[in-house]
Amino acid sequence: MAGMGPHPAVADVRRAVRLALGDLEPGALVLAACSGGADSLALAAALGFTAPRAGLRAGLLSVDHGLQEGSGDRAGDVVRLAPGLGLGLAEALPVSVGVSGGPEAAARQARYAALSEAAERLGAAVVLLGHTRDDQAETVLLGLARGSGTRSLAGMPARAGIYRRPLLELGRATTVAACAALGLVPWDDPHNLDPRYTRVRVRERLLPALEDELGPGVAEALARTASLCRDDADALDAWAGEVYARVAVRDCALSDMTTVTMAVRDLEDLPVAVRRRVLRRAAIDAGAPPGTLAASHVLQVDRLVTAWRGQRRVEVPGGVGAVRRYGTLIFARQPASPVS
Amino acid sequence: MAGMGPHPAVADVRRAVRLALGDLEPGALVLAACSGGADSLALAAALGFTAPRAGLRAGLLSVDHGLQEGSGDRAGDVVRLAPGLGLGLAEALPVSVGVSGGPEAAARQARYAALSEAAERLGAAVVLLGHTRDDQAETVLLGLARGSGTRSLAGMPARAGIYRRPLLELGRATTVAACAALGLVPWDDPHNLDPRYTRVRVRERLLPALEDELGPGVAEALARTASLCRDDADALDAWAGEVYARVAVRDCALSDMTTVTMAVRDLEDLPVAVRRRVLRRAAIDAGAPPGTLAASHVLQVDRLVTAWRGQRRVEVPGGVGAVRRYGTLIFARQPASPVS
Repeated sequence: MAGMGPHPAVADVRRAVRLALGDLEPGALVLAACSGGADSLALAAALGFTAPRAGLRAGLLSVDHGLQEGSGDRAGDVVRLAPGLGLGLAEALPVSVGVSGGPEAAARQARYAALSEAAERLGAAVVLLGHTRDDQAETVLLGLARGSGTRSLAGMPARAGIYRRPLLELGRATTVAACAALGLVPWDDPHNLDPRYTRVRVRERLLPALEDELGPGVAEALARTASLCRDDADALDAWAGEVYARVAVRDCALSDMTTVTMAVRDLEDLPVAVRRRVLRRAAIDAGAPPGTLAASHVLQVDRLVTAWRGQRRVEVPGGVGAVRRYGTLIFARQPASPVS
Repeated sequence: MAGMGPHPAVADVRRAVRLALGDLEPGALVLAACSGGADSLALAAALGFTAPRAGLRAGLLSVDHGLQEGSGDRAGDVVRLAPGLGLGLAEALPVSVGVSGGPEAAARQARYAALSEAAERLGAAVVLLGHTRDDQAETVLLGLARGSGTRSLAGMPARAGIYRRPLLELGRATTVAACAALGLVPWDDPHNLDPRYTRVRVRERLLPALEDELGPGVAEALARTASLCRDDADALDAWAGEVYARVAVRDCALSDMTTVTMAVRDLEDLPVAVRRRVLRRAAIDAGAPPGTLAASHVLQVDRLVTAWRGQRRVEVPGGVGAVRRYGTLIFARQPASPVS
């Protein structure tokens, strides 16, 4: 093999990992989250190859969700692979998955909590995640089905906090080919074929249907959509943040209650996309939980600005309401009923 | 039937049409574009009912694309329906469809040219189009497959120039039910079932697959996505337009060539979504055709700003190129080769 470069798929994954780590200080610790599936196995292998050449330390973390018979053994198997991949540090992380928000959301929450805890304990600068362009395409389709706009179409970010996703521009076929070229046998999670999961149905049925009807390249188009929508959402959030800082008056005089007031004249000439984001911030600042504050609530509040005909208080989640009084919009939480 | 209101579907279509016409001056002429299909037939009937009650004049236009045996007869049939629908003016508009851009694009272009010409000749204030929420959902999916971002997800606008689409928030089932309730027999265009058309495949195969896998309400979610993306794209275009007006210097000294220059320092701190829109405007101003100027071209130009390492002229369509010289970005068309 002397003189031959690596298999193109192996080279692609390594290049993506190297580019994702270019800004780290020498000696920094990078951990790959690795389930043993093709994506994260190819990722871990690329990290093991790349890190020493870039003066970085590297390891892997394998979360054991405890949801399947033998999942602990499998996490152990992944950990035992680590030295052969060039990774000097490896841990299995057993987690207990709750139920809140459905099985997929609960597993995700438990997984990220365990990864973040381990990263902090081990002093890691970065945790790499193996999501590919195909995962991104699935995420965009799921966001599309929610119909909640640009931010939900933005998919997963390439970087967020300690997490980085170097493989977002590579297809799953590349990670599968990389594993095969390296003689690594990925573990096929049976959950990945269980049609009770929405994401599995998107992957196994919808994306192939989209490719059949619209032509190849749909996954790339969806991933490109995600990236463009993320840029757009970031720019509009920045604009709204600037406006909010300038026009909103926050009053925290009561220890358990924040009131936010804004002059209607500061809002009415804004583009609607910006105004709705400003109103959303105000509602959240006043105590509305971001997760349950829907576009429809914000739309109702917006009508206090743009379609004023003496409406009553508009209720949003978290006991927060918005009222308009003499040209001022006031967001406040309903005081708790007085104890009699 | 005395004392009974209209069928709910009929009422929904009439309400949508009434709301879309609320701002017109008394006596204004409103024309419905009507193919004879359920959507536009329900639209025309609602216009015939609504217009006299709103003090407006109303009529219909039926485009004959000449693409099918008997299409002229059908346009004539639609025109003959008009008096019974309460429409005092009706015209069939024969058009000849070219081939440029594919059969769907060519038919669309011929159709709008004929409608605009007739509207102007007849002095119409508004032309109504029968697109429903289902058409909007199809448009969003087609835009998604292109992967060209927020603007291509924005679907069809409710208003653009003389055109208005009052039915964008109603489902196709409503127009079908309205026709049935009114005893109108819609014409089923065989093209609407021809799987050689991408839009037909989206309608007949993809949207049902999305509903099956993601649950009902996908068309509504897609239409909501369109509306939110349109607002976002409008706000960002406005922002970019403001920046462009401030930072771009246009030089039209040569009669056949516009040169656009901008200082790099005015661009580098902009959010990427805004900067790319500013660069796009500059390229178009310098002569690049909007239709062929792709995101990838703009991305290359953007690297002259954000990843400068002495690159050469970046070529964009229309013979336009961008160069960076001493902190200034210059867009110019390549001069035609001198005649020797």
